[in-house]
Amino acid sequence: MMKAGDDEGAAGGRLGFLKQQDSDAKEGKTLSKLSSTPAKGDWTKASCPCCESKQVEPLVLVKLGGKVGPETKRWLIRLIGAQQKDGGAGLLAHPGEDAQSSIIVVSAPRCTLLRATEELGLCKTYHTGEMEAFSYNDRDNFRNSNNMEAFLTLAEREYIVKYELEGLRAQKDLRIPGLPDKYTLHNRDNIWQKLCSAGVIVDMFPLHNSEKLKQLKEAWYLGNQLSQPLDSVNEYFGNSVAFYFSFLDFYTWSLLPPAILGLSIAYFSGEVQKEMVESVSKSQSPDIQVDSGLMVSGHMIQAVFSMLWSTVVMELWKRRSATLSYRWGTLQLAERFAEPRPSFHGKLGVNPVTGRVELLFSEWQRDLRMLLVSVPVVGLFLGLVVVGMMCFYWGEAQVKQLHKDWDSYLSQTFLYIPSVLHIVYTNMLGNVYRNVAQALTEFENHREESAFENHLTAKVLVFTFFNNFAVLFHIAFFKQDVSLLRKRLASLLIVTQLVNQVTEVVIPFLVDRFISAPRRNEKEDDPQEDKFRNQRSLPPFPGLFAEYIELLVQFGYLSLFSCVFPLTAVLLLLNNVTEIRSDAYKICKLFRKPFYPPVANMGVWQIAFEILSFASVVSNCWLLLLSPHVQVWGQENGLSGGNLLLMAVIVEHVLFLVKFIIAVVIPDEPYWIRKKREHMEYASMWALRQMTLEARES
Amino acid sequence: MMKAGDDEGAAGGRLGFLKQQDSDAKEGKTLSKLSSTPAKGDWTKASCPCCESKQVEPLVLVKLGGKVGPETKRWLIRLIGAQQKDGGAGLLAHPGEDAQSSIIVVSAPRCTLLRATEELGLCKTYHTGEMEAFSYNDRDNFRNSNNMEAFLTLAEREYIVKYELEGLRAQKDLRIPGLPDKYTLHNRDNIWQKLCSAGVIVDMFPLHNSEKLKQLKEAWYLGNQLSQPLDSVNEYFGNSVAFYFSFLDFYTWSLLPPAILGLSIAYFSGEVQKEMVESVSKSQSPDIQVDSGLMVSGHMIQAVFSMLWSTVVMELWKRRSATLSYRWGTLQLAERFAEPRPSFHGKLGVNPVTGRVELLFSEWQRDLRMLLVSVPVVGLFLGLVVVGMMCFYWGEAQVKQLHKDWDSYLSQTFLYIPSVLHIVYTNMLGNVYRNVAQALTEFENHREESAFENHLTAKVLVFTFFNNFAVLFHIAFFKQDVSLLRKRLASLLIVTQLVNQVTEVVIPFLVDRFISAPRRNEKEDDPQEDKFRNQRSLPPFPGLFAEYIELLVQFGYLSLFSCVFPLTAVLLLLNNVTEIRSDAYKICKLFRKPFYPPVANMGVWQIAFEILSFASVVSNCWLLLLSPHVQVWGQENGLSGGNLLLMAVIVEHVLFLVKFIIAVVIPDEPYWIRKKREHMEYASMWALRQMTLEARES
Repeated sequence: MMKAGDDEGAAGGRLGFLKQQDSDAKEGKTLSKLSSTPAKGDWTKASCPCCESKQVEPLVLVKLGGKVGPETKRWLIRLIGAQQKDGGAGLLAHPGEDAQSSIIVVSAPRCTLLRATEELGLCKTYHTGEMEAFSYNDRDNFRNSNNMEAFLTLAEREYIVKYELEGLRAQKDLRIPGLPDKYTLHNRDNIWQKLCSAGVIVDMFPLHNSEKLKQLKEAWYLGNQLSQPLDSVNEYFGNSVAFYFSFLDFYTWSLLPPAILGLSIAYFSGEVQKEMVESVSKSQSPDIQVDSGLMVSGHMIQAVFSMLWSTVVMELWKRRSATLSYRWGTLQLAERFAEPRPSFHGKLGVNPVTGRVELLFSEWQRDLRMLLVSVPVVGLFLGLVVVGMMCFYWGEAQVKQLHKDWDSYLSQTFLYIPSVLHIVYTNMLGNVYRNVAQALTEFENHREESAFENHLTAKVLVFTFFNNFAVLFHIAFFKQDVSLLRKRLASLLIVTQLVNQVTEVVIPFLVDRFISAPRRNEKEDDPQEDKFRNQRSLPPFPGLFAEYIELLVQFGYLSLFSCVFPLTAVLLLLNNVTEIRSDAYKICKLFRKPFYPPVANMGVWQIAFEILSFASVVSNCWLLLLSPHVQVWGQENGLSGGNLLLMAVIVEHVLFLVKFIIAVVIPDEPYWIRKKREHMEYASMWALRQMTLEARES
Repeated sequence: MMKAGDDEGAAGGRLGFLKQQDSDAKEGKTLSKLSSTPAKGDWTKASCPCCESKQVEPLVLVKLGGKVGPETKRWLIRLIGAQQKDGGAGLLAHPGEDAQSSIIVVSAPRCTLLRATEELGLCKTYHTGEMEAFSYNDRDNFRNSNNMEAFLTLAEREYIVKYELEGLRAQKDLRIPGLPDKYTLHNRDNIWQKLCSAGVIVDMFPLHNSEKLKQLKEAWYLGNQLSQPLDSVNEYFGNSVAFYFSFLDFYTWSLLPPAILGLSIAYFSGEVQKEMVESVSKSQSPDIQVDSGLMVSGHMIQAVFSMLWSTVVMELWKRRSATLSYRWGTLQLAERFAEPRPSFHGKLGVNPVTGRVELLFSEWQRDLRMLLVSVPVVGLFLGLVVVGMMCFYWGEAQVKQLHKDWDSYLSQTFLYIPSVLHIVYTNMLGNVYRNVAQALTEFENHREESAFENHLTAKVLVFTFFNNFAVLFHIAFFKQDVSLLRKRLASLLIVTQLVNQVTEVVIPFLVDRFISAPRRNEKEDDPQEDKFRNQRSLPPFPGLFAEYIELLVQFGYLSLFSCVFPLTAVLLLLNNVTEIRSDAYKICKLFRKPFYPPVANMGVWQIAFEILSFASVVSNCWLLLLSPHVQVWGQENGLSGGNLLLMAVIVEHVLFLVKFIIAVVIPDEPYWIRKKREHMEYASMWALRQMTLEARES
């Protein structure tokens, strides 16, 4: 990403960003009627009179390449401003300081916003107070439909600009002015992609609204609030971010019961106290005095509780998620009925669902690609992780042997080589895999943006999770060493959380404060332009993947191995309370504002958490079986290893069944939301019948 | 049910059933205009001119109580014939031979049928050839909408008559002529229920169409067809019956692979041959010579195959079921938007989904009733089954001891007492339970007929299944005696199938032939009336529950214990080939024609089969672990019981995972059906937007 911010040139049009109507009135209307090219430093004019407004809100900044000629820029501005029926984006464009500067600021007029709202299938408040799927034709019956800043959230408005720009397709063969012939557009080519590959567009990002950002910060992390301003987050950053913070919030609160239980077990059970101390102090006392008079130990209570807890939490979260989705109007997203995502390719044909002519790609072909290419490749990389781990263990044994034989300083330094090599290997593998996963998902050619995202996330997720847990699983299932597992878990919980907080927040903060900020504050005389330049100098937001995977790995420690280390929930609770604030600080201050499409839920993350919750039954039962307490109890009661195992298997099956029943019995959406949804379905059914009548009568 | 058929009286109106128009023309139209009471022995007149047709097809017979006076009958006929907006059923009624006879024959005019088609949410062929949800207003664009016999199936027409009759509600307080005051109807009372409880209506059943029945029989079971005429079955008996026979057909064909595998294993494996012979010949050779050189035995192949096979079959069946549902127009049933079922009770209120004023019953109250009443009661009965089984084993041991001590003829007869008592106990328990289940489900107060049916079926199903398998599970999991299990399974497979075929077909056939038929054929001079009387003399169809549970128990034998007795699939295949024909014969000849509402799938049976398919993994892995082959192999390779168990558990978990992945990966509906469904959804969404526009403009 380009960090340069030095070619915006000198003065001109500084206040013009906010005053379209005024300057229009001054320059007279003849100019804008004669040509759609805008006057120097002015917004293009909205094509329909209802969209004219006094203030135009700058939403998205498009950064052009340094070598882009003025004729290309003029052509692009005209394209952005042209009506959609003429092949344009139907947006408003501003050339920045002058026609030579390499930015275009884009905004959206009312009609384009409203049409896109319908196309995306967003629900908005009807005049009755209910949420209804927005219909452009019925716009007057929706509340605030004259005031876009109240009707759509800032994130939605910005996403719509991106959606329209990236959806631009050539309506006929077309030469782009100022570009060589090889970049000629053919019919139905995606214009934006072509421009990006030609280097005309190097960057595009949504603009901050400093006033709103300030309010948000105050409500979010500057005080001592217990609750997060989720609706404001949704308004400012969009559903995806708001869902992440909602889940983080919900999950943190739901850590309270296991944390309290863990604390009380650690307080009342001598055995557990001892283990805790051992695991942290790195010394191991070989003679474990277990009070095995009791059949039920603290570990068991903790394990059974956490297994059932995880299912209940996930079910309750689904209900909460449905409620949020209703509140944020994304319960009826119509992505699958909308245009395919820009980089989707296929043959032109009639979509059997919508009846529109568009690119089609057969489903079985995609399935085949997933089955024959993606699955084996992902499997290969997982295999490489295992190979790496095995090599590490082998190398460690070799080096130890060497050290034993030589016993020199040189051989002592050799001791670190396997770990270092393993870390290097793992990191390289991770980087390669990320690119491979991207390429594979691109190759699968998903039609919808959300499907693409989910498949990509799933691929990276499986790998990352495997990478994180391979060692722990190895200890738990092959080495079968519970106390080593406990130590490892304790160090992971404490060390990785500290490392995460440092790498995620402290380093970016320091970089921002001491490297970027001084450069940013050089020119104080040009507030509007400088704001844009400042925003561009921030690194792009790395996405929510890292945030979610952190939570998932946490959840994994907690649910998979909770019976080993009862204080897990306490540590996680402490971590998450700071995590909420640091994540909020990060997204508000340290990175560029990201684009996020409207979504109805957490997508594939929901499934990952649920799978983990079921997998936890297997690992907990196994760890309980291995625990010295149970082994001693078995010996005292004359139970053989086989009988103990049989008991563990029976307990496991019963817990599976109970979890399954809990998951089925708790409805995934609250009753009132189901009624609303059914009402919408009923209304659509009824409308379909009515409409065929109208069609017949006319 | 009343079997009397002796009060239809003498001649009159015999051909009148088929000639409304003719007699209308003769008697002049003044009469029917002056009063809606029909002329003696004639059909009531349809209220709208478009519904007048030359032939009226008798669809449903309503049998009145013997003491019902002519004024009540006249009132009832008027009610049936009155328009729906006047509180009538909008149907056509015929008083039978004269006003004094105790039957009413009911038919339905075109408009009522079409409106009900829309209300039920049936899909019909549009003029484009696609299936579309039928809309009354758009009726002219649907194929055959002028010819009810081609447009709706016979089963649908008959069900609609029942639906309209049972949905009759009083529009104001009303005294029924000829009945005492305590039967006065209050506003919104269900009229039909009141009439049944007052003894006015004693019976109602759909009428056979002898010509169609003959054609159906010929295409179904009179020849040597390999395939069943499923569309004709659907046309004549309705979806539910057609789904049952489709599943039976599909399931029978899918038995071929395990049957072939079972046969080849039995042919090639000496061990298995020996076991088969032993299990049938009741003699057990104590020295089992197992060729334990091979790790993998025939049992294992059979077990793993059948575990994966069951999931694949159920997934493929779901796809087939979706295809059938599309073909039969039940993919978009609108039951939840329609009126609640007749015996539903609640408080009058506004339905939040449809906005109509109707009876409402809160969901949490129903959930509470299920949780606090139904679940404990069902659990109690399952407990009683276990108690019965334990008493049986205890009693058997006692009696054997007694016989050993006394050794007389008397004590030998005592040996049979426990079995006899157990059978009596089980039967009594079953009968009591059936009534309890009915009462419980009624108490749960389900809104939709299908929900009621599914909950009732689920209750009886769990109990019956438990009853059938308790002994086998006891042998497999507690006694851990594989050879006893094999013997029991062989005898169950052979004996119960013979018994089923005899009780289901041979006995009803004999009764019909030698007891009922002679009485039926007494009067040859009155064909139409006699046909009705003959149909009434048949016993009512006992429902599909017994048929489905037979299949489920079969499927249970096959999937849960297949590794014990590899020839199970072969025996079941043989059984099912005859089962198809005997079931077809039964429903066509031996019983009254049943009413069945339109359904989109097998309902709760689908779930039951799937649960069984997953449970099979547990039982097969366990039985393999117990099998002598594996035990010997373990001993030879120095594996302890615990290690063998661990291996079995790992195999079980892997199989669970594989089955789960198969179930997720195979889509539940074919691609083309999903596209059609999405198209319908898109059309509804689009219509809703259009309609709000129309509403705004008008």
